[in-house]
Amino acid sequence: MVVLSREALHESVVDPVSASMNFLNEVAGRYPEAISLAAGRPFDEFHSVADIDKHIQAYLTHLRERGLSGAAARQLLTQYGRTNGHVGDLIARMLDVDENIQVPAAAVMVTTGCQEAMVIALRGLCAGPGDVVLAAEPCYVGLTGAARILGVEVVGVPESPDGLRPETVRAVAAAVRARGKTPKALYLVPNFANPSGVSLPVPVRRALLAAAADEDLLILEDDPYGLFGLDDEPRPTLKSLDSDQRVIYLGSFAKSYFPGARVGYLVADQTVADAAGRRTLLAEELSTVKSMLTVNTSALSQAVVGGMLIDSGFSLRAVNQAKIAFYRRNLNTLLASLHKHFAGTAVRWNNPSGGFFVVCDVPVDASEALLEVSAQEYGVLWTPMRFFYVGGGGTHAIRLSCSAIEPDRIEEGVGRLAALLRR
Amino acid sequence: MVVLSREALHESVVDPVSASMNFLNEVAGRYPEAISLAAGRPFDEFHSVADIDKHIQAYLTHLRERGLSGAAARQLLTQYGRTNGHVGDLIARMLDVDENIQVPAAAVMVTTGCQEAMVIALRGLCAGPGDVVLAAEPCYVGLTGAARILGVEVVGVPESPDGLRPETVRAVAAAVRARGKTPKALYLVPNFANPSGVSLPVPVRRALLAAAADEDLLILEDDPYGLFGLDDEPRPTLKSLDSDQRVIYLGSFAKSYFPGARVGYLVADQTVADAAGRRTLLAEELSTVKSMLTVNTSALSQAVVGGMLIDSGFSLRAVNQAKIAFYRRNLNTLLASLHKHFAGTAVRWNNPSGGFFVVCDVPVDASEALLEVSAQEYGVLWTPMRFFYVGGGGTHAIRLSCSAIEPDRIEEGVGRLAALLRR
Repeated sequence: MVVLSREALHESVVDPVSASMNFLNEVAGRYPEAISLAAGRPFDEFHSVADIDKHIQAYLTHLRERGLSGAAARQLLTQYGRTNGHVGDLIARMLDVDENIQVPAAAVMVTTGCQEAMVIALRGLCAGPGDVVLAAEPCYVGLTGAARILGVEVVGVPESPDGLRPETVRAVAAAVRARGKTPKALYLVPNFANPSGVSLPVPVRRALLAAAADEDLLILEDDPYGLFGLDDEPRPTLKSLDSDQRVIYLGSFAKSYFPGARVGYLVADQTVADAAGRRTLLAEELSTVKSMLTVNTSALSQAVVGGMLIDSGFSLRAVNQAKIAFYRRNLNTLLASLHKHFAGTAVRWNNPSGGFFVVCDVPVDASEALLEVSAQEYGVLWTPMRFFYVGGGGTHAIRLSCSAIEPDRIEEGVGRLAALLRR
Repeated sequence: MVVLSREALHESVVDPVSASMNFLNEVAGRYPEAISLAAGRPFDEFHSVADIDKHIQAYLTHLRERGLSGAAARQLLTQYGRTNGHVGDLIARMLDVDENIQVPAAAVMVTTGCQEAMVIALRGLCAGPGDVVLAAEPCYVGLTGAARILGVEVVGVPESPDGLRPETVRAVAAAVRARGKTPKALYLVPNFANPSGVSLPVPVRRALLAAAADEDLLILEDDPYGLFGLDDEPRPTLKSLDSDQRVIYLGSFAKSYFPGARVGYLVADQTVADAAGRRTLLAEELSTVKSMLTVNTSALSQAVVGGMLIDSGFSLRAVNQAKIAFYRRNLNTLLASLHKHFAGTAVRWNNPSGGFFVVCDVPVDASEALLEVSAQEYGVLWTPMRFFYVGGGGTHAIRLSCSAIEPDRIEEGVGRLAALLRR
């Protein structure tokens, strides 16, 4: 009988962040009655199975109106299809309506969730062992995980409490160059980052674009939470401010529609020139990578998303008003509960202006052992911030999520957390 | 404006096989009236958009009968889900019914098509630069493409006209070891391989399992065409003959259901032991890799496939009788047409016992330039066999496909090919 040694498998199988995430899921599984301030998934009750057929039908109607025959529509939904997908034009239209981003449909690649978009962008840009990616730190584990699969080094750019600072990006890029490596791109979440909750002021966004230009970096902008601000302040994406194609925009429908569709996208309108001077768009060049990962994105899932975009008048913002109100109320509830229980104590928390996450500094080691005690004895789950640091850090901080449960449970959960930390 | 140099992108973007495949697609696009003996996709008219909702409903009924609440079913179809998927149990049941493969559901990982299954298996098994994969050559381009994304070296094991020989596997493995590398796995398609069409006799399958055991190789068995034999001979998969978990089985629903669902799977029931002696299944360990590529497989697509499996009584063989008859007639038509036009000439072709492909040796250089002439002047497309060799070869051979068109077009296409080659 074949017995494989776990240690002989690739490092991405056995990496510590995955082990941590598995531990978190495993604890959640063992204490199903615990209130989860750890889960960052969207709230279940916004999703509807009936939407699936409704939106497929809306997409089929749209195809018919565009003059496609029944056979051609069938082929689009059931055959192997164009590597970069069949709803890129609808996504480009939504980006224009909602985000003031104007790109040709050919610059949009539809991906199997945003996770695949990260893998594809990193793979295309990082050609050799000397090519590294910079990432705002604390960093979303999906980005570090994607890099680990590919053997791409991630170098953290420490966030200040107000978010990423352009001068820190410059300093880290210079330090990377000084050790003979090439920083190719900078990954960031401009709005209500996961995990830090922090958003970047507009002048900082512009300054980051300038720093990226000076340092010859592309920016990988990931914006899954941008709709969910506490107010209606405009928060322009870096891509909408990007006048020289410096930004690759990574998109997700997981929070604005539903995660089970597994549809995301990347926008790469950069020009690529070969030695003969032939010019293409980066999204077109990256289709080779996409084809070798998943051939193309589920045609069904694309049709469902396409139908939703058509039904919404190409505005996720318009169609998500109820979700926006719900997540606002939840975040306000979380912040009010933290104030109620922790004002005047040694616990400190930040004050995100939107999104799903708040970070608390706690006066104890926020370890896996403490999480186990928290789940078992106090019935509340949270995420140790140490999971989000590439090279160590976050030992005395936790991430609290408020997206997956209702306000009364958030209040109760923070009360339980207070009981734990009083101990 | 950012202008990227194509040569600075990763080699998987610019690799020659992809360029060749793009060339093929591009020629097909320029000559839409040409008869394609190049396209290996399944025949369109077996697919039905109405099946999508029908099979989702069948899956929902199944979940209800298993006692799941409406909310739990909604969650399964719309939320982030289990990394390894929610229809593994149904796939395990089908493998038992159709293939005499008995594995626990936990050994099945549902993937975004078989392509992702290849990426995940290669990534998990090949941990360092010295770990290489052996592959029957000529080789399916999806395997070499997946390896290129990951920087894994592929070493070809030349097929004889009767298919892979165990002694060649042993010799290639020894040669790889002699240059200080470690062969970790052997990729093969036992039934009607793409591109060669060749199938392995049962004694050879057993001998390959023995050779793999001796050489400490896992076998990556890819079987997308196994249903489509010209006769009802049983052709046991290597996995069904595998008594010591030597085989990782890579599955596809692209030909047995429809490609647009993008659902495949891998079966990895190998035991993994860590330093502490804790034992898990390889499929469970590989879930880390899956989560970093695509999080999980489209829950919608899984539901559609799940409903189809339930509706079919868990037998792809039973539900595919019409397709089996169609592809038999097509392959017989292709072989008869070759006989009619080329018997007694310098053109030689092999005699597959099923599947979608026949290989012809031709007395000319089967180059891209000849393909262009063939498309433009003779209205027929085919695939140069040189696309399928890692290290050169196949210059005077072409692959003919017979899956995507009807018999009269196949006859006409071979006639046009004869006109080209008479020139």
